[in-house]
Amino acid sequence: MASSGAPKSHIDAAVQSLNVLKLDKASIKTQLQSAVSSNTDAFRQALVNTLERRLFYIPSFKIYRGVAGLYDYGPPGCAVKSNVLAFWRQHFVLEENMLEVDCPCVTPEIVLKASGHVDKFTDLMVKDDKTGTCYRADHLIKDYCKEKLDKDLTMTPEKAAELKHVLAILDDLSAEDLGAKIKEYGITAPDTKNHLSHPYPFNLMFQTSIGPSGFSPGYMRPETAQGIFVNFKDLYYYNGNKLPFAAAQIGQAFRNEISPRQGLLRVREFTLAEIEHFVDPQDKSHPKFSEISSLEFLMFPREEQMSGQSAKRLQIGEAVSQGIVNNETLGYFIGRVYLFLTRLGIDKERLRFRQHLANEMAHYAADCWDAEIECSYGWIECVGIADRSAYDLSAHSDKSGVALVAQEKFPEPREVEKLVIAPVKKELGLAFKGNQKMVTEALEAMDEKVALEMKADLESKGEVEFHVCTLGKNVTVKKNMVSISKEKKKEHQRVFTPSVIEPSFGIGRIIYCLFEHAFYLRPSKAGDEQLNVFCFPPLVAPIKCTVFPLVQNQQYEEVAKFISKLLTAAGISHKIDITGTSIGKRYARTDELGVPFAITVDSTTSVTIRERDSKDQIRVNVENVASVVKEVTDGQSTWDDALKTYPLHSSGSAED
Amino acid sequence: MASSGAPKSHIDAAVQSLNVLKLDKASIKTQLQSAVSSNTDAFRQALVNTLERRLFYIPSFKIYRGVAGLYDYGPPGCAVKSNVLAFWRQHFVLEENMLEVDCPCVTPEIVLKASGHVDKFTDLMVKDDKTGTCYRADHLIKDYCKEKLDKDLTMTPEKAAELKHVLAILDDLSAEDLGAKIKEYGITAPDTKNHLSHPYPFNLMFQTSIGPSGFSPGYMRPETAQGIFVNFKDLYYYNGNKLPFAAAQIGQAFRNEISPRQGLLRVREFTLAEIEHFVDPQDKSHPKFSEISSLEFLMFPREEQMSGQSAKRLQIGEAVSQGIVNNETLGYFIGRVYLFLTRLGIDKERLRFRQHLANEMAHYAADCWDAEIECSYGWIECVGIADRSAYDLSAHSDKSGVALVAQEKFPEPREVEKLVIAPVKKELGLAFKGNQKMVTEALEAMDEKVALEMKADLESKGEVEFHVCTLGKNVTVKKNMVSISKEKKKEHQRVFTPSVIEPSFGIGRIIYCLFEHAFYLRPSKAGDEQLNVFCFPPLVAPIKCTVFPLVQNQQYEEVAKFISKLLTAAGISHKIDITGTSIGKRYARTDELGVPFAITVDSTTSVTIRERDSKDQIRVNVENVASVVKEVTDGQSTWDDALKTYPLHSSGSAED
Repeated sequence: MASSGAPKSHIDAAVQSLNVLKLDKASIKTQLQSAVSSNTDAFRQALVNTLERRLFYIPSFKIYRGVAGLYDYGPPGCAVKSNVLAFWRQHFVLEENMLEVDCPCVTPEIVLKASGHVDKFTDLMVKDDKTGTCYRADHLIKDYCKEKLDKDLTMTPEKAAELKHVLAILDDLSAEDLGAKIKEYGITAPDTKNHLSHPYPFNLMFQTSIGPSGFSPGYMRPETAQGIFVNFKDLYYYNGNKLPFAAAQIGQAFRNEISPRQGLLRVREFTLAEIEHFVDPQDKSHPKFSEISSLEFLMFPREEQMSGQSAKRLQIGEAVSQGIVNNETLGYFIGRVYLFLTRLGIDKERLRFRQHLANEMAHYAADCWDAEIECSYGWIECVGIADRSAYDLSAHSDKSGVALVAQEKFPEPREVEKLVIAPVKKELGLAFKGNQKMVTEALEAMDEKVALEMKADLESKGEVEFHVCTLGKNVTVKKNMVSISKEKKKEHQRVFTPSVIEPSFGIGRIIYCLFEHAFYLRPSKAGDEQLNVFCFPPLVAPIKCTVFPLVQNQQYEEVAKFISKLLTAAGISHKIDITGTSIGKRYARTDELGVPFAITVDSTTSVTIRERDSKDQIRVNVENVASVVKEVTDGQSTWDDALKTYPLHSSGSAED
Repeated sequence: MASSGAPKSHIDAAVQSLNVLKLDKASIKTQLQSAVSSNTDAFRQALVNTLERRLFYIPSFKIYRGVAGLYDYGPPGCAVKSNVLAFWRQHFVLEENMLEVDCPCVTPEIVLKASGHVDKFTDLMVKDDKTGTCYRADHLIKDYCKEKLDKDLTMTPEKAAELKHVLAILDDLSAEDLGAKIKEYGITAPDTKNHLSHPYPFNLMFQTSIGPSGFSPGYMRPETAQGIFVNFKDLYYYNGNKLPFAAAQIGQAFRNEISPRQGLLRVREFTLAEIEHFVDPQDKSHPKFSEISSLEFLMFPREEQMSGQSAKRLQIGEAVSQGIVNNETLGYFIGRVYLFLTRLGIDKERLRFRQHLANEMAHYAADCWDAEIECSYGWIECVGIADRSAYDLSAHSDKSGVALVAQEKFPEPREVEKLVIAPVKKELGLAFKGNQKMVTEALEAMDEKVALEMKADLESKGEVEFHVCTLGKNVTVKKNMVSISKEKKKEHQRVFTPSVIEPSFGIGRIIYCLFEHAFYLRPSKAGDEQLNVFCFPPLVAPIKCTVFPLVQNQQYEEVAKFISKLLTAAGISHKIDITGTSIGKRYARTDELGVPFAITVDSTTSVTIRERDSKDQIRVNVENVASVVKEVTDGQSTWDDALKTYPLHSSGSAED
C-alpha cells in the first residue's frame, strides 16, 4: 500500500483501525500490502474496478462498444463533478468577484485562425501504410525507447544514453526528425508490423460546418478562453473601464486525440474551467497577495529541473520576492489554486507547482506554472497558470480590426516627447520614382534609435545610405528628403493592451486524481475481506449521508422517511436504504461511494450518526439530526465539534 | 404597457408608485403607455436593449460580426442561468432522488442512427438558384401567406380561407406539397427574387469525424436523452433493479438551424435539462401524485384545440381522473413543472400546458403536453412532457443487441399458457429440400391466431396450404411436419421494456421568457425618465444584493468592505459600488440588473436595506445585515417578515 500511491494518512488510518482490533499489526500490514500489491497497476486496477462498478464513470456508448476517449459520469461521478464546479464558483468567481460568461462550443473558423489553433493546434501522426490506422509519431518512438531501455540487456551504455536523450527532447522534434528516427529504429505499426507513412500534422480540433451552405467552416472549441478574449471590450466596459478584472468560464472543450490513452486523463471531450485575469502590464501587483503569501508548498522552479534537483518547499511570498515567480498576480493565483485543490481533498504531499522550461513556453509567455498532481500515471498537469502577456488580445485586435485595449487616464496631462518622421514626398518622388512608396514606408517604419542616427548623419554629412528591405537594396537619402525631429506633446491617457494571466483547470483530471487520493482499502470487521473506501471531504462527497432503519420495521421506516424529508428541505443529498441487508454491509456499500455520514434509525426518538473514516457514532435526537448533518457537511462545524456536543454511541454488534 | 405583454401586477405597481407621488394618475398612465408603446415590438425592443446593454447576453463572436443563432451569456445572464440550473437540480434531481448523468456531446453515428436522428432529424430547405443562399421552405410559405392575409385587401374570401388552411396544415406538408405551393404562389428568394430549388431535406445535426481516420462519422448531439437511454442497463442495476426511477442530464445540445430567427428562442446551441423517468407500462401510477393533484392551472387539451375553444383552468388531479392526461406519472410531472416555472418567476397567467394534437405526436407516443409560455413572440414551447412508451429503449436494444429490459419478479411463480410450435425437421427436409429453412422459419414465426387455425385445419383435413413470404408462394404443410400445442409453464418473472416519460426543458427559452415576465418600466422620482426594472425573485436574481456607502468617505467604505466580507462568507453574491454617483442612480443601475436588495451604509453602526420593487427600506445593525439578506434570499423568511422585525427607514432625500 505504501508504495502504491496511497497517502501516508490512509495507511495510518488502516493501521490505527487494526490497533483497535488488537491484532498482530505487522502481519496484517504485510497482508494489506500484498493484498493491494506493491505495484501501482494493482492499486489502479482496484480503483478503476470500484469506479466503474459503482458508476462513478462509464465508458460512453458502452452498448455500442464505446468510443475511445469518451466517458460518461454516472450518478456519483456526476455529483462529485457538480460539487467541484460549485466550489470552484464559490472559491474563484464569488470570492474574487469575477465576471462569469458562457459562450458556445461551436466556433467559426476566423476566431480560431486568429488564436493560432487552425494553423498550429496539431500533433504529428503516422499511418499504417496498408490499414490506414493512425498513431502519434512521438508515442511510437517513446514506446520503442522505453521498451529497449527496459528489456534490451545487451545495449551499450552509449546506445542507452542516446535513447534517454531522445526521450528528453521528444517534444522538440520536428516531423522530419521524428520520421528520421522511425526509419533509423525500424519502427513499424504496432498491430500489423506494416510500414508507416512519414509523420504529418493532424489538427486536433473537431471540424464541422455552420449552417446549411457548406461555406462556413467551424470547429468545436479546443478551450473556453477564446470566448472571453473576443468579449474583452464589453467586459471591460461592464467593469467600469477599470483594470484589473477577471472573467471566468466553465464549459466543454474538445480535442480529437489521435489515439487516446491513460483512461480519464486524456479524453476527447472534457470540462474546462478557465479564468482570464486582465491586468496592466506595468503593474502586476495584487491587492490580496498578502492573504496567501505565507502559504508554503512544493514548487519545482526551472533552475531545479535543469540542474537535476527535485521539487522543494517554498513560501509563495518568497518565490515572488526572489523573482522565481514572475509577479504577484501570478503568485496569488498559484496560492489560490493550492487552496482550491487541497480543500477538495488533493493530498498536499502529492501536489507540486512546476515551472515551464524555456522550450515548453510559448514565445510570448512571461512565465508559466503547472499544478501537477501525482497519481498512478505519474505527475499529471491538472491546472496551468500562465502569464500570456498581451498575445491573445493583440491577435484578435489584429484579425477583427476592433481595438481590444485599456486606457489609463492620467490625473494630470503628461508631457511626452514623441519622435516625428516626416518624409518629403516631392523630393522622394523625384529621386526614386516608382520606388517612392517603398522608401517612404521604410523611413516611417524606423525605430527611434535608427531615426536619431540618421538625423545626426544627415546633419553632419548631408546624405546617408539607407537599406530598404522591400527593395532589397540600399538607397541614398539626402537631407531634403526627410525631416526627423522630437516634439513635446501633452497626453491625457495611456492606451495599452492588457496582459492576461490565465489559470486553466482540467476538471476531469482533477476529479480523477481526487479519486486516487481519496481511495483506500481497509479490512472488514471479520478481517476476511478488503473493503473499499473513498475518504472524500463532505464538500465533494457525491451523497452527504444515508439513512438506514436498523431492522425492517414500519415504525423505523417512517422515522427514516421523516428524516429524509428534513434532509431534503435542508438541501442535503442523501439516500434511504430500507433493504434488509445487514447494517455492516450497508455501511460498506456507502463507504465505497464516499458517503461521509450514515444515520441509523434504531429507535423512534433518537438515532445514531456514524462518521465514515473513524467509524465513530454519536446519538442525536430525530429533530436535530438534519441540522447536525447540514452544519458538518456545510463546513460550519466539524465532526470533532459534534463529538463534543453529542453522546458517543458504542456500536456494539451493530456493525457486523 | 397593458397590451405590451407586461403583466397586470407590474402596471399596478407602477400606478401605485404614482399614487404615492400624488400626480395626475390618468395622464401619467397615458404617458407610460405611449412611452412603452402599445405594441409588443416596442416592449421587446426596450427589453432587448436593456439585456444587451447590461450584458445579460451578447451575440457570440461579435467583433467578427457574429454568427446567426449563437449567443453568449454575459455576467448577469450567466448568473441567472446557473441559478436556474441549481434550482432545477434541487427541485428535480434532489427532491425526486434522480440519477444524474453527464455524457459527451460528441456522439458516434450508430447511436443517432438507432434513435432515428440520422434519417429523420431534418427540415425541408430550398436554395436560391444563383447565390446558393438557403431558406426553410415552410418559412417562406408562412411568410407569403401571412403577408397576403395582412396586406392584400382585394383577396376573395375563398382565397383567404385557402391561405389560412395552408398555414394550419403547414407542418404536415411533404417536400412535394411544399414545392407545389412555392410554384403555385410564385415564391422567389426573399433577398434576390431569384428562382428557388425544389425543397429537399437538410439534416439539422452538426456533423464531424471522430478520430483521425475519417472513417468514424459523428454528430454533436441534438438532445441529451440518448446518453441516458444507452446507459439504461447500468442505471437500472444501480437503482437495485427496481422501477420506477428517473435519470436526468443537463448539458449542451446542437441544432444546425437553416436560418435561425426569433433571437434567443431559436438558436444553434443551447442548454437542455432532460429527465427520463422509466416506469412499468402496466403501472404508471405515481406515489407522490397526491402532493400535486390539487394544483390548478391553464390547460389546453386536444379537444379544446380541435373545437376552436381556448385554454381552461383545470385541476391536474381532475385532468388525470377524467383521462384528459394519460396517466398519473405524466400528470405528476406536469404539476412539478408548473411549480418549477412559477417559482422561477414565470407569470402563471401566461403559462399553459398544451396537449399535442394527433398529427404532432410521434406514432409511438402515448401522450404529450408542452409547457408553453406567452411572450412577445406568442406562446412558446419551453418544456415538452411526453410519454414516449418503449420506443427509445426498444430502438437501442434492436440496434445494439443488448437487451434494455426490466424484470418483475413474481412473489409466487405464475402458471401461463404458452404456444409451442415444433417443426419436424426430417419431414420438412424430405418435402422441401433446399427450401426447408425458409418454410421452418415461416412456421416458427406464426402468431398465435394463425398457428391455432393451422392446428385445427391439420387435425380436421390432415394438410393445409401455407404462404411462405420468403419463397413468395404457397406450400402444402402436412400433419406430420409440425406439432402445434399450448403448454402450461411456470414463470417466475415478467420481462418487459419499460415505458419512458420525458420532461425536456429548453433552459435558454425559459430564461428568455423569464426576462420578458420580469421586465417592467417605472418612472424616476422626478418623473422625467422611464427606469428599467427586472423583478426577479431572489432565487434567480443574478446578484442578491449591492453595498453602497451613501457618500464617499473612508469610514463608510470600511463598513461596506466589512459587510462585503460577511456576505462572501455567507455565500451571497453581491457587488460593492463606491463610486460617487448619486444613490438614486446607483439604485436605478442595480434595479436594471434585477438585484433584489441594496444595502446603503449611512452610519458606522447600522445600515439600511432597500427592497427593489416596493422601494421600502429597513434599518439593521451592521453585524446582522448579512444574515438578514441571507435568510430572505434563501427563502427561509420573507421581506414581509423582515419588515415586521426591523424598523422602517423613511428614505427622505436618499433617493434623488
